[in-house]
Amino acid sequence: MKYFEQVGDVMRFGRYEVTRDEIIEYARQFDPQPFHLDEEAAKASMFGGLIASGWHTGAMFIRMVVEHMTPVHATTGAMGFDDLKWLKPVRPGDVLSVESEIREKIESRSRPDRGTVKIESRISNQRGEVVMSLVSLVIYLRR
Amino acid sequence: MKYFEQVGDVMRFGRYEVTRDEIIEYARQFDPQPFHLDEEAAKASMFGGLIASGWHTGAMFIRMVVEHMTPVHATTGAMGFDDLKWLKPVRPGDVLSVESEIREKIESRSRPDRGTVKIESRISNQRGEVVMSLVSLVIYLRR
Repeated sequence: MKYFEQVGDVMRFGRYEVTRDEIIEYARQFDPQPFHLDEEAAKASMFGGLIASGWHTGAMFIRMVVEHMTPVHATTGAMGFDDLKWLKPVRPGDVLSVESEIREKIESRSRPDRGTVKIESRISNQRGEVVMSLVSLVIYLRR
Repeated sequence: MKYFEQVGDVMRFGRYEVTRDEIIEYARQFDPQPFHLDEEAAKASMFGGLIASGWHTGAMFIRMVVEHMTPVHATTGAMGFDDLKWLKPVRPGDVLSVESEIREKIESRSRPDRGTVKIESRISNQRGEVVMSLVSLVIYLRR
């Protein structure tokens, strides 16, 4: 189990294959804009082809976190996040992975058994380009 | 069409009925944690019952934005977010809506035809409780 760990610790994890069908399915349900929904319309857009909804990329990120991080980390969950940036389009065929770094630890005054950790995560594609970054505020239990 | 508008402007929009089946479907695909997936496990958790993934609440928010805001706003999309907070659990039967307020306008030095607007959005349930808030950075065209 990993507890309230050291600032500077870096974790690399996850592998998410992005498919055309999943991009379109997510867009139909939650973000029905032409460049997420339809290949022809997307070609004519500023993106030059189908791209995933930014919130879909966030969903892929949380899937990788829940699969690889949550089972081995003594956390009670995230309170929110800061500074989310969509940096590059995510397209069918991309393979995403995550690099997370502990940036800051804040001890709780009222609850000595826990603390808040600021974790900066960068989601990259198979070319090493960062497509999204964000800073999560996560509550950790202390050893 | 709404362009690069006034600081202080408030827009209220959207109506999203949260269902048990959609909470579980989203969780299976993207956030498979017991309190999002299974009613019995959720009852035994700190949440006392099934709750939506925070990223699912974000997806409901973007659905309301795309339905009600995007068609009538001269925007080329969001660059990212700041200060997202999950404040209250979202449960089956909740009905969500959005209140968005223009907090700041930043003119572009390099592109006189556009600007960035910081929009604070609060997503509330049918009891008027804010369940999630965030600040979007959105690029707007100028008149």
